Amino acid sequence: MDEPFVIVGGDAAGMSAASKAKREDPELEVIVLERGEWVSYAACGTPYYVKGEIEELSELVAVTPLEFREERDVDLRTQHEVVDVDPDSSTVTVLGEGERYELSYGTLLLSTGARAVEPPFEGMDREGVFTIHSLPEADAIDVFVADTAPETAAIVGGGYVGIEMAEALSARGIDVHLFEMLPHVLDPFGEAVAEAVEAHLAEQDVTLHLDTAVDGFVGRAADGGAQTDGAEEPATDGTVGGVRVAEEVYPADVAIVGVGVDPATELAEDAGIELGPTGAIATDQYGRTNVEDVFAAGDVAEATHVVTGEPVHVPLALTANRAGRAIGQTVTGDPTPVGETAGTAIVKAFDLGAARTGIVDEERAREAGFDPVSVTISAPSRPHYYPGGSKLTVTLLANAESGAVLGGSVVGEEGAKRIDTIATALQGGLTVADLQGTDLAYAPPFSPVWDPVLTAAKVLEGKLA
Amino acid sequence: MDEPFVIVGGDAAGMSAASKAKREDPELEVIVLERGEWVSYAACGTPYYVKGEIEELSELVAVTPLEFREERDVDLRTQHEVVDVDPDSSTVTVLGEGERYELSYGTLLLSTGARAVEPPFEGMDREGVFTIHSLPEADAIDVFVADTAPETAAIVGGGYVGIEMAEALSARGIDVHLFEMLPHVLDPFGEAVAEAVEAHLAEQDVTLHLDTAVDGFVGRAADGGAQTDGAEEPATDGTVGGVRVAEEVYPADVAIVGVGVDPATELAEDAGIELGPTGAIATDQYGRTNVEDVFAAGDVAEATHVVTGEPVHVPLALTANRAGRAIGQTVTGDPTPVGETAGTAIVKAFDLGAARTGIVDEERAREAGFDPVSVTISAPSRPHYYPGGSKLTVTLLANAESGAVLGGSVVGEEGAKRIDTIATALQGGLTVADLQGTDLAYAPPFSPVWDPVLTAAKVLEGKLA
Repeated sequence: MDEPFVIVGGDAAGMSAASKAKREDPELEVIVLERGEWVSYAACGTPYYVKGEIEELSELVAVTPLEFREERDVDLRTQHEVVDVDPDSSTVTVLGEGERYELSYGTLLLSTGARAVEPPFEGMDREGVFTIHSLPEADAIDVFVADTAPETAAIVGGGYVGIEMAEALSARGIDVHLFEMLPHVLDPFGEAVAEAVEAHLAEQDVTLHLDTAVDGFVGRAADGGAQTDGAEEPATDGTVGGVRVAEEVYPADVAIVGVGVDPATELAEDAGIELGPTGAIATDQYGRTNVEDVFAAGDVAEATHVVTGEPVHVPLALTANRAGRAIGQTVTGDPTPVGETAGTAIVKAFDLGAARTGIVDEERAREAGFDPVSVTISAPSRPHYYPGGSKLTVTLLANAESGAVLGGSVVGEEGAKRIDTIATALQGGLTVADLQGTDLAYAPPFSPVWDPVLTAAKVLEGKLA
Repeated sequence: MDEPFVIVGGDAAGMSAASKAKREDPELEVIVLERGEWVSYAACGTPYYVKGEIEELSELVAVTPLEFREERDVDLRTQHEVVDVDPDSSTVTVLGEGERYELSYGTLLLSTGARAVEPPFEGMDREGVFTIHSLPEADAIDVFVADTAPETAAIVGGGYVGIEMAEALSARGIDVHLFEMLPHVLDPFGEAVAEAVEAHLAEQDVTLHLDTAVDGFVGRAADGGAQTDGAEEPATDGTVGGVRVAEEVYPADVAIVGVGVDPATELAEDAGIELGPTGAIATDQYGRTNVEDVFAAGDVAEATHVVTGEPVHVPLALTANRAGRAIGQTVTGDPTPVGETAGTAIVKAFDLGAARTGIVDEERAREAGFDPVSVTISAPSRPHYYPGGSKLTVTLLANAESGAVLGGSVVGEEGAKRIDTIATALQGGLTVADLQGTDLAYAPPFSPVWDPVLTAAKVLEGKLA
């Protein structure tokens, strides 16, 4: 291959692909074009930076640009933005260092990621209103909190970003109100997790406003409180002072909007690359798009669900890393599937861990064509007599006819990582009977004889019989 | 069925079978004959009683005799010993309450358990020399330590009992010496675990004597130290004063011998019931012995290994509970396999957790007819930037030809329970590629993006390719 492997976007998927391709074929020219300053960073770590548990944002960078350039021999160009892709001529157009230039590619990887959704709220552009999906956004929140010492925060969105930011801002002494449009927080985790997390958030003095649509943000009144007259312009300055919900205004000295992410598909669409049903780029099992020599991976691309076989958009780090790595292998002559996703996710909510994998609620299972049966059980994470255990609540879903495990959730102070047992069962296509018969590890400091996941399987097996 | 379901031995397997049978068929008469006082107890908890973390031995009892009798309607007869089984007449002979009586059975379950091996050491009967496999033994050790305030302990055997007792006695301020005949402690856990645990034990001031066969125990000399003259009789009394190793004698004010357990097969052998190659009772997939209407389960019986399909003797609690429960179902008309075992085990060694499943060393894999490839990797349990993680060392073995996962081990201060991912992979017959592609849970407070088990799979996949 004479033409280079060109990668657009230098985070998890892009840098994994670059590193793997260079390792497999050191002769291959690999060029990464990243429009920002940062590459290969853990966006998932940003709430803990805001919380104050991580000192420097640079700690979130797994591999520095210098290491990519000097040790891995990747031609990494930060602050170079790709503004056009032309599959007919196999070129991309780049803006960087004040110049506009074209670059030919042999293979192209689009790993442009996703960006935080900016809902059309009134006052989204006020000072003190933030989204958070990148290191600069985390930095801006940290600086704003340090400078203005907010008393009250409004978090809009009860997904994992919202929950993590509630913990982070509470740790900085701020009174947190969390607004969620749906009846529950953490909707993709199912009801058992949501109820446990909601009860725990209340214990931690986070005020929950469920079933509550936010209309927008008002400015600060002259006395420092929130404007309540409904005027569009702030009385004093452009800084946020409150959050408007129907007829009410709650005070808020800072606001975080975390209502999801959208795949950054503009470049792909302009180049005639097909999107899938989720709105992300459609790919085959090798991460190929419909256009020759163009791959897509990470938060901009769809993945295949391990249970349903359907395309899904799961913008999570492991999926991105794995797909990037596989494409790096494929591009260098060893065709490697990008793998499937179970949508496995885990989140820390103060002292609770909450996790999910596969399909966790019956309604979604029916939509996917299954006849679901499910159980939710609570069991101790260690035997009653051993110090330090806590309650774990496990939900497990199966298909009635085949007995196949469809998914589940785990929530508790200790042991949420046990979701991995269920995720591995999904990967292996295990039935509930298989799972119930799995030889999991037992000793009193670690687990009861029947691990809570086994207990759930046992009870679900009884329901299936 | 008119004749009762008779169960010999009232611990994990026996009481699980009794409970399940009564739940499935409340009309069935279920009689449990237990020669001791205790039933349904967690022998695995005894080291933590000796350590002082559990106040009362009775806390180790999962279900009391009263609950079995009154709530579960089981005819539980403690301090009733079965002295003979006659399959021809379908009767057992019992000694209890000063009488000898016969009892007819429709179905018989032998769940007589195992007992601690008593090696033919000189001085095994000295006061202060203990084995530990039951609640009375734990109680005796606790009382002896409280009464005599030993300065030095000798632990013979570096298996999980030895390691747990080293922790327990150290916590009581005793200087512990641990003697192991083999070159490593925790031999079934493989070398990577053994080396990590040995280094940690040394840090905890446990003195290790590896490759060291113990000859026996000497008495206390008149001055309170160990006799060193080689005399068989103690100078002062029958209490242990030292442990003899070749030509040397190390002082020991208390000694624990934990060199394994033997299945209690005498009753079965006398009745003409076949033992398998391991010396435990041979059973089929439903737990049936070669004799009609006679089942065996728990520490007295063999189980089938999930990887090799061969009979093995794995005297562990989950295997016993699961087999008992399945037999309770089978006996009441719903034939249920007892399941297979992966030999999954986990042990706490002071601040370390160590775990194993399947086949963990190449030599044993070759003996079982495989062509093994293995890797050992170390990776952090959480991302480098997140507080509180520690190093996890993961060993993973696969068969070269098929790529099938054969087993593995995990050792570290945090996360040894991740062995369950490998155990589930064994249950599902996953290849290394399948395991590498499993969607495990990631968020900074719980795991790096690539869980250490995935990292091991990734590296092993590279070696297989």
